[in-house]
Amino acid sequence: MPRSPYEILHAKRDGAVLPPEDIAALVDGFTRGEIPEYQMSAFCMAVFFRGMEAAETRALTEAMLRSGEVLDLSDIPGAKIDKHSTGGVGDKVSLALAPLAAACGVKVPMISGRGLGHTGGTLDKLEAIPGFRVDLPADRFRALVREVGACLIGQTARLAPADRKLYALRDVTATVESIPLITASIMSKKLAEGIDGLVLDVKVGAGAFMKTLPDARALAASLAGIGRAMGKKVTALLTAMDEPLGRAVGNALEVVETVELLRGGGPADLKTVTVELTAEMLLLAGVAGELPAARAAVESALRDGRGLAKLSDIVRAQGGDPEAIREPERLPRAPARYEVPAPAAGFVAGVDGEAVGLAAVALGAGRARVEDRIDPAVGIEVLKKVGDRVERGEPLCRVHEGARSEPRPAVTARLLRAWRLSERSPAPGARILERLA
Amino acid sequence: MPRSPYEILHAKRDGAVLPPEDIAALVDGFTRGEIPEYQMSAFCMAVFFRGMEAAETRALTEAMLRSGEVLDLSDIPGAKIDKHSTGGVGDKVSLALAPLAAACGVKVPMISGRGLGHTGGTLDKLEAIPGFRVDLPADRFRALVREVGACLIGQTARLAPADRKLYALRDVTATVESIPLITASIMSKKLAEGIDGLVLDVKVGAGAFMKTLPDARALAASLAGIGRAMGKKVTALLTAMDEPLGRAVGNALEVVETVELLRGGGPADLKTVTVELTAEMLLLAGVAGELPAARAAVESALRDGRGLAKLSDIVRAQGGDPEAIREPERLPRAPARYEVPAPAAGFVAGVDGEAVGLAAVALGAGRARVEDRIDPAVGIEVLKKVGDRVERGEPLCRVHEGARSEPRPAVTARLLRAWRLSERSPAPGARILERLA
Repeated sequence: MPRSPYEILHAKRDGAVLPPEDIAALVDGFTRGEIPEYQMSAFCMAVFFRGMEAAETRALTEAMLRSGEVLDLSDIPGAKIDKHSTGGVGDKVSLALAPLAAACGVKVPMISGRGLGHTGGTLDKLEAIPGFRVDLPADRFRALVREVGACLIGQTARLAPADRKLYALRDVTATVESIPLITASIMSKKLAEGIDGLVLDVKVGAGAFMKTLPDARALAASLAGIGRAMGKKVTALLTAMDEPLGRAVGNALEVVETVELLRGGGPADLKTVTVELTAEMLLLAGVAGELPAARAAVESALRDGRGLAKLSDIVRAQGGDPEAIREPERLPRAPARYEVPAPAAGFVAGVDGEAVGLAAVALGAGRARVEDRIDPAVGIEVLKKVGDRVERGEPLCRVHEGARSEPRPAVTARLLRAWRLSERSPAPGARILERLA
Repeated sequence: MPRSPYEILHAKRDGAVLPPEDIAALVDGFTRGEIPEYQMSAFCMAVFFRGMEAAETRALTEAMLRSGEVLDLSDIPGAKIDKHSTGGVGDKVSLALAPLAAACGVKVPMISGRGLGHTGGTLDKLEAIPGFRVDLPADRFRALVREVGACLIGQTARLAPADRKLYALRDVTATVESIPLITASIMSKKLAEGIDGLVLDVKVGAGAFMKTLPDARALAASLAGIGRAMGKKVTALLTAMDEPLGRAVGNALEVVETVELLRGGGPADLKTVTVELTAEMLLLAGVAGELPAARAAVESALRDGRGLAKLSDIVRAQGGDPEAIREPERLPRAPARYEVPAPAAGFVAGVDGEAVGLAAVALGAGRARVEDRIDPAVGIEVLKKVGDRVERGEPLCRVHEGARSEPRPAVTARLLRAWRLSERSPAPGARILERLA
C-alpha cells in the first residue's frame, strides 16, 4: 500500500529513495486534485535539494506519462524520431529540421511548446505564418505524420496532463531547476508522442538553462538514461549558447531566417546546429548508417530545395499559406525599424541571450505571463555576432518595433547590456560541444 | 521595495540571507491570503534545507508577532513569567508549575496549546476539570493574572494569527522540524503574551521532538537568543524524555497526578522537573536570588499546600469545579480498566513516549486530526518506569478504556512495543541534562 502524501514528502525530505508506488500515488493523487498544491510544491522543493535516483526519476516519468493518452504510431511505416531542445534564444532549428528530416525519409511527430520568459516557442513561430494551425486533433496529427512525414502541434490536454499541472506549479515555486523534475517533464511528454527515438539538444552557456558543461552533461545523461530505459533510442548533443542562434529573434523574423536557411543561405551557426541535429535523427532512424553520410544527406536536401518544398507541404497541410514561405514578405512585418549603435569599438565577445530574449518580450514577441498576446512581427536582428569587429556607432542590431512595444530608450538600454565588447578578437568556439550517443 | 514572493523563495532556495523587509513581505502577504499556500510551503521547505541566520529568524518572529495583537501587562505589578515546553508525553508540568509559581509571587500569563499527534496539550488536561474554561477574553485573562496570579488559556485568533496559519501548513508539508521555523512559531506566541521572562523546557530523547543533545542545544540557543534580542529574560533547561513524565498519560489521569504532586506526593521525575522549572521562574522574576533558595521556596509551597490552594483558586476563577481538585474521584472516570502484563522478566531500559502517546490517542485521549473529540477519562498509568525490575506476567501499565477506545488487542500491541526490557539494570540517568541561562 502506498504511503500518505505526508509520509512520502517526509521521506523524500529526509533523503529516502522512494519506491515507484509512492511516486505513482503522488502523481496520480495530484493529477486528480486529491493532493493539494501546497504538498506537491513542498515535495518538489525537497526533490530540488535531495535529488532522485535513476529509478525514482523513471517512476516519476512513467507516472506522468500514464496520466494521459499515449499515442501509438506503430502502424505508420518508418522510424518516428523527434528532437527536443532545452531552450535557447533565436532557436528556430525545429522549423528547418522537421522538413529536412522528413525530406530524408524520417517520420517526425513533433509536439512543441510556446515561449515563456526569455525563450521563444516553436508554436509561436509557426503561428507567424498566416493560417497555420498547431491545435490539430490526434487523428489528424497521425495522418499528417504518415502522409507528409512531419507534423508540428502543441501539447494537448490529453497528453501527460500531470506534467502540465506540475510544471505550472514548479514555475511559481522556484522548483524548475531540478534535473529529475526536468527529466520527467520532458520525457513524459516526448514518450507520449509514440516515438522510436529522440535527439536532444542540451544548450550550455550564460543564455541557457544549464550554465556549465558538467550540469548540461548531467541533464543529458539523465534524459538519455530514462529514454533508453523506456526502450527509445536517444542521442544528445551539447551545444553552445553564448549568443542567440542565428541572427533573427522574433517570430516572423525567425520564419524568414528559416526560409533563408532552407534556400541554402542563413547564418553559419544556425546551419551547423540544424545539420548536426537533423543528421542525428537520420542515424537514429536508420536512414543513414554513419554520421558523415547522414550529414551529406541533410546538406543535399538543403541544397536541392527538398527541405524547403517539405516545409511548404507542412504549412499547407496544417492550414497555413505556403505563399508566405515562397515570398516571406507576406509574413507580418513591423511598422517601424531602428538600429542600436555600438557605444565603443571592439570585438564582440558575447551576446547575452537572456537579455536579447527579454528585449524581444518587451517588444511584444513573447510573453511575460501565460495570458499575454504575441505580436508576430516584432523582434531583433542581430547584426554583430561573436567574433565580429565593430566600430563605434556601427549598428549592433536592428529592432523591429510594433504598436505595443516598450519605448525605444528602454529597449535600447536592454540591448546595450546584452553585447559584451572586448579589445581582442575572442578565440573561436565550437558550436557542438559534446555528443552523447 | 521588497521582492516578489517568487524572488524571495528563489533566493532562499539558493542559500541567500534574506533582508527583514523580504521576510515581512512574505509573512504579511501570507497572513492576508495574498501569497498562496503552495509558495509558502515551498518556502518553508527551502528554509528546512537552508536554515536561517539569527537576524532572519528574528525578522520572522517579529513579523509573526506583529501579525496580531500584543498584550500589554505592564500595568500589573510583579514580574510576568511563562514557561514553554517543546512537548512531551505525560507532561503535566504546567498544571502544577503555574499555581506553584503564583503561590510564590510570580505572575503567570500562560497561553497553552491543545494536543495533536502523540503529545498531549495543557488545554485538554484542564478541560478534564468539569466547567473549566480556557477560552477567556483578553480582559478576563489580564484580570486573573493580576488577581489570582496565574491564568491558563488557549491561543486566541488575535494573537500571532500568522503563526496559526503557518503552523497548520507546516504540519501537513513536513516542514515542522526546522529550528528557525520552530523558534519563530514559539517565540511569536510567547512574546504576544506580554511577558517579562520565559523558562524553556527543551525535551531531549527518543520520545521528544529533538532526539539528540546537540539538536536540543541548538533549539534552546535559538529560542533564548531571539527572546533576549527582543528584551526578555530567558532560561532554558534541557530535560530527558526517555519515558513519559510521571506515571499518568491521559487528561483526567494527569489532573489526578498533578493533585498528588501538589499534595507532596507524585512520581519523583515529575517532581524534579516541576520544581526545577518553577524555581527558574522565581529566579527570572527576582522573587528568589539564587537557585537553592528558589528551589526551597517552591518545595515549601508544595509541602504546605499553598500550591494546591492556588490551583483551586485558578480552577474556580476559570469556571471549574474546585471540588474536583479536592476530591479527584469527581473527575471523569473510564468505565473499564485492564492491565498489560510483561512478556518476559527484566529491567525497564526505556519506555517509548511516542508509542505510549499514540496508544493514548487510540484510546480517545488525544486527536489524530484537529476535529477529533477527546474522551477526558481514558488513558494509561505507567506502572513500571525506567530502572524498575519486572517479572514475567507483572503489569507494565494499566489502561483506562472508554466507549470509543480501540480494541484491547490493538492497544495492548501498541503498548508492548513501547517497553524495552533488558537483563541488566540500566545506569540511572539525570532528568535535568543542561541549563542554559
